[in-house]
Amino acid sequence: MVRPHDERRGALPVIAVAMGDPAGVSPELTAKVLALPELCAAARLIVVGDRRVLEQGERVAQVKLDLKTVEAGSNQPEDERRPIFIDLHHLDPKSIRPGIAAAEGGRSALANYRHALTLAHAGQADAVCFTPFNKQAMRLAHPPYDDEISFTAQVIGSDGPASEFNIVDELWNARVTSHIALAEVAERISRQAVLRAIRLTDASMRAAGYERPRIAAAGLNPHAGDGGNFGREEIDIIGPCVEAAKVEGIAAEGPFSPDTIFVRARNGAFDGVLTMYHDQGQIAMKLLGFDRGVTLLGGFPFPICTPAHGTAYDMVGKGIANVGATRAAVRLAIAMATRAARAT
Amino acid sequence: MVRPHDERRGALPVIAVAMGDPAGVSPELTAKVLALPELCAAARLIVVGDRRVLEQGERVAQVKLDLKTVEAGSNQPEDERRPIFIDLHHLDPKSIRPGIAAAEGGRSALANYRHALTLAHAGQADAVCFTPFNKQAMRLAHPPYDDEISFTAQVIGSDGPASEFNIVDELWNARVTSHIALAEVAERISRQAVLRAIRLTDASMRAAGYERPRIAAAGLNPHAGDGGNFGREEIDIIGPCVEAAKVEGIAAEGPFSPDTIFVRARNGAFDGVLTMYHDQGQIAMKLLGFDRGVTLLGGFPFPICTPAHGTAYDMVGKGIANVGATRAAVRLAIAMATRAARAT
Repeated sequence: MVRPHDERRGALPVIAVAMGDPAGVSPELTAKVLALPELCAAARLIVVGDRRVLEQGERVAQVKLDLKTVEAGSNQPEDERRPIFIDLHHLDPKSIRPGIAAAEGGRSALANYRHALTLAHAGQADAVCFTPFNKQAMRLAHPPYDDEISFTAQVIGSDGPASEFNIVDELWNARVTSHIALAEVAERISRQAVLRAIRLTDASMRAAGYERPRIAAAGLNPHAGDGGNFGREEIDIIGPCVEAAKVEGIAAEGPFSPDTIFVRARNGAFDGVLTMYHDQGQIAMKLLGFDRGVTLLGGFPFPICTPAHGTAYDMVGKGIANVGATRAAVRLAIAMATRAARAT
Repeated sequence: MVRPHDERRGALPVIAVAMGDPAGVSPELTAKVLALPELCAAARLIVVGDRRVLEQGERVAQVKLDLKTVEAGSNQPEDERRPIFIDLHHLDPKSIRPGIAAAEGGRSALANYRHALTLAHAGQADAVCFTPFNKQAMRLAHPPYDDEISFTAQVIGSDGPASEFNIVDELWNARVTSHIALAEVAERISRQAVLRAIRLTDASMRAAGYERPRIAAAGLNPHAGDGGNFGREEIDIIGPCVEAAKVEGIAAEGPFSPDTIFVRARNGAFDGVLTMYHDQGQIAMKLLGFDRGVTLLGGFPFPICTPAHGTAYDMVGKGIANVGATRAAVRLAIAMATRAARAT
């Protein structure tokens, strides 16, 4: 989906890449992804972190990067063809204990991410990527930290609907509710919430290049309620929202039985699945190869992408971390930023 | 797991096989499974249905069966080595509309199943199998029909805990709640219900030949509640039940995050997964190849097994229905009946 530079008539899209948790594979992955010529040719990459930590990552990854290192706040050199590294100089690599969640690591990851968001919010970057965070470290550094969505909304002052999308093998998954107790799920399934989620899924997938994404809505109950025998949300809420979305020109279908919707999607029947709660989608996506996939935070003024896997504390320092998901995340960010530039 | 005859010192186990919905692939599957010499050598099979319907199945399956046909209520010939067919003579094949759920078909399937259950309940069979039912046809024939568990309990007058188990590729899945609205799930997760389900899973798996099955309990909430941040059932209910089960000598573990428990199980970490609600297990099992698997109704005085797939109305009459799951169901019934006989 990424268009080469000369087709675009303008400058390359600018992607701000925040380095994630330093105690895991983030430094290695950042080094590996910056070493990919395909990405450096398709975008201007601005990496935010501590240069010494990235150097450690280069050693683990066994790559030698050619970057232009600048201080935070300095003017970005417009004619620089190399990736730019904004050195926050905030984390001495000696303080990192590999494989252990720590406040220092959380603090640095949060600072990197905040800086990248600020760049994009100020129009100096078209999209944001980040290598894996460790939620425990984030909370040690910043106890009110909840998740990336709420932190992002707070940093850029956004209050519109935002949602996490998971993407594996071209299949998108979005959800109406997320990190809440199962006991609270049913009461949160409202016409407003479901229709908003369908619209956001459609808009995000169009922004990523789908002309008219086929979106399947899952039911809430077993067998999608079996015609009202066990639960009426399909009849009273989800079905009417699908019909309303169709009227708006969205290729929505459903609600379908939650236990077969992903089998059908895997077989190519749909481009995206909208699930009603966290595990309805996550159980399926993890079995389908979630860790190879990408997470997109949709609903913000710019795309935010990250590999779906975690910090992989068990493989830190070994050089064996697979860069595939991080590459896919940067590629999606580039594709979405490129399309956004063409649309304006 | 099936022991050959000469090792058993007694008679072969007797398996009553009820023919399922006649408008789907049940007649074809019954014919195909009866044509397998391995099963006829390992058990005495007593098939219940209408002989004319099975003849249709033979034509579709392109097999010619050698059965001893008897009337209902007549003495079963003890020295007969061929499978026995109890002909209820209740369904004219001309009345069957292939691929359409109908009251006549539901009525015949219910009569076959009831007869097979009665045989086992009276000690004339050691286990029951059935080929796929169609729930809509069952309800047309018998509106109060809910599911196989409640129908079975009613026919044999059983009121103990019973549960459906799904088995794919040696992985067992059981659940604490089943066909209820998602809104009602959390309130049904009690210490009594969870501990009872762990015990029943352990007992059923031991009955099938596991010496000490490794049973993983899923949490109820996303990320198993994230330490109480979204839901406390893991801390207050599921965890204590797992500990109580361990004290009883059950190899229980958990609770684990629902969205990774099946990835771990698929990789061999557990023999069985106990899920808290229907779709938590079914979403995973369907992706893992549910249709190749077996459903066991556990908790009754005798095992009841059936292929996990449905009536496959879309492939009726073509002769292409795969007998694998039906064979696996009969094999499991034979294995469990054989072990039960050896234990007494």
